[in-house]
Amino acid sequence: MQFDLEHYFKECQALVNEALDSSLPKKELHPPKVHEAMRYSIFAGGKRIRPILCMAASEACGGGRREVLPIACALEMIHTFSLIHDDLPAMDDDSLRRGVPTNHKVFGEAVAILAGDALLSQAFLVLGKLKDSLRDPRCVLEIIYHIASATGSMGMVGGQVLDMEAEGNAIDLPALRKLHQLKTGRLIAASVLSGALMAEATDQKLAAGACQPGSGRLAAIESYGEAVGLAFQIADDILDIVGGSDLGKDIGSDAENKKATYPSVMGMEGAKKAANIAKEEALGSLNGFGPEADALRAIAEFIVERRK
Amino acid sequence: MQFDLEHYFKECQALVNEALDSSLPKKELHPPKVHEAMRYSIFAGGKRIRPILCMAASEACGGGRREVLPIACALEMIHTFSLIHDDLPAMDDDSLRRGVPTNHKVFGEAVAILAGDALLSQAFLVLGKLKDSLRDPRCVLEIIYHIASATGSMGMVGGQVLDMEAEGNAIDLPALRKLHQLKTGRLIAASVLSGALMAEATDQKLAAGACQPGSGRLAAIESYGEAVGLAFQIADDILDIVGGSDLGKDIGSDAENKKATYPSVMGMEGAKKAANIAKEEALGSLNGFGPEADALRAIAEFIVERRK
Repeated sequence: MQFDLEHYFKECQALVNEALDSSLPKKELHPPKVHEAMRYSIFAGGKRIRPILCMAASEACGGGRREVLPIACALEMIHTFSLIHDDLPAMDDDSLRRGVPTNHKVFGEAVAILAGDALLSQAFLVLGKLKDSLRDPRCVLEIIYHIASATGSMGMVGGQVLDMEAEGNAIDLPALRKLHQLKTGRLIAASVLSGALMAEATDQKLAAGACQPGSGRLAAIESYGEAVGLAFQIADDILDIVGGSDLGKDIGSDAENKKATYPSVMGMEGAKKAANIAKEEALGSLNGFGPEADALRAIAEFIVERRK
Repeated sequence: MQFDLEHYFKECQALVNEALDSSLPKKELHPPKVHEAMRYSIFAGGKRIRPILCMAASEACGGGRREVLPIACALEMIHTFSLIHDDLPAMDDDSLRRGVPTNHKVFGEAVAILAGDALLSQAFLVLGKLKDSLRDPRCVLEIIYHIASATGSMGMVGGQVLDMEAEGNAIDLPALRKLHQLKTGRLIAASVLSGALMAEATDQKLAAGACQPGSGRLAAIESYGEAVGLAFQIADDILDIVGGSDLGKDIGSDAENKKATYPSVMGMEGAKKAANIAKEEALGSLNGFGPEADALRAIAEFIVERRK
């Protein structure tokens, strides 16, 4: 039987959106301007790919969806923070994102910078609140460590630095891979890993030596995360060229910004092939898993085949 | 015998600077530009008030200095991130900070934004790394929660939003207090509280019910932190008007930016009186402590009496 990914997405998105609403400060809270700006970008669409990967990885490791919701929310807050800052005039200077005006177009540059900063802080506030959860607190610290590392100077933020530097310059395939691994790959991999770590953070499993990345099932999940992160970025680059208007940003905006992309470096056919290879790698990592990993498998297929 | 605060500061600063050096990625690491920018602002001077408060609070609660160094570093990274972002053209548009060119003047606006983002991420990476420490991990999560909360939209970042909104507008004393409580007070209070929490996070003390903010010694330490944060901000406002050139920024820059300050709202004499009242409150909170809190006492005196 075919896995019903559309249904799975809808269910997960509803859970995440509800959790995001309750884990962000209400609009009325002081100072309202920044809360309005945070909520504006969080609820301006978005497929919630990182939260869904986190939930699917939890399920693949015998956990549930609800128990990883705080982590899922933190991941989406961090992703949204990066979108707000990437769109700033000093960066990509974009005026449309997900089909609506970018944060600084609506709230001004200062508030947009601060709303991004606040979302990043809120992500760790939400993770710190897991002090009150029943899960092993040392595993939660492990998750915080991985997410912070995937976010910072040797993760997403570092990738954006490379992206800015590469603009208008010739760049070879290894440099492009490194750029994307930092900018997109590491947070996607951390989304998958953190969901799996949380599922393993129960007393019985800990006694059996779980919650150590790099061992057993977690190693397989980590490989999946890395491969799926790569596939995602290549597919994104392809979509920027061939995508429909549903993308919510101008088609070809990468080319306009003279961004290095997989199609520009290895040609469209080469890029499509590379996306498929990455997808097969992701699927291969899950060979030791049964139907509990079907969502992860379907997401890998979706990422390469999506049209928006 | 007089507490030798100058000596205490020197010892603590040396410890913190060494720990900051080893807890930040090396300059050579990829991508070097962002690591250079992070280190530039971290090592561009600064009294390390927040780290020293954290260490002194740990000592007041029977802990040591070294065991809170990761927290001390995280606090200084967050403080430095806020300075970099506050100085941006879209914010206060300052070109000098601590006597040297601001981050964006040296590295450009994009890298400055990203270096701030990376410092904020690195702070939580360093805190997450405490997974490997011997301290109670649930207490570490408690500390992460308090620091993130003091940083975000209802802390420092929210205070900067209020500060931007207040520029050029009349503002009354309650609004000014709220602004400064968020912008400066909460992170200073969190510095004190987190040092105390870490000192209490030993097995014996936990068994006795420690690690709950709001109870016993921690409540006293929290009151101290709030009062000292207020004293710090009033003193800072006063210094902006009467300070020497050692301040490293143009004297009167607040007036030039039409910032609301304590002296502008309550007059210079009123502001000096308010700073002294806050200092007395801070000292009063420590009545239940012996000589182990002498450093905290001396810091409260210093904050109000400093000339730079």
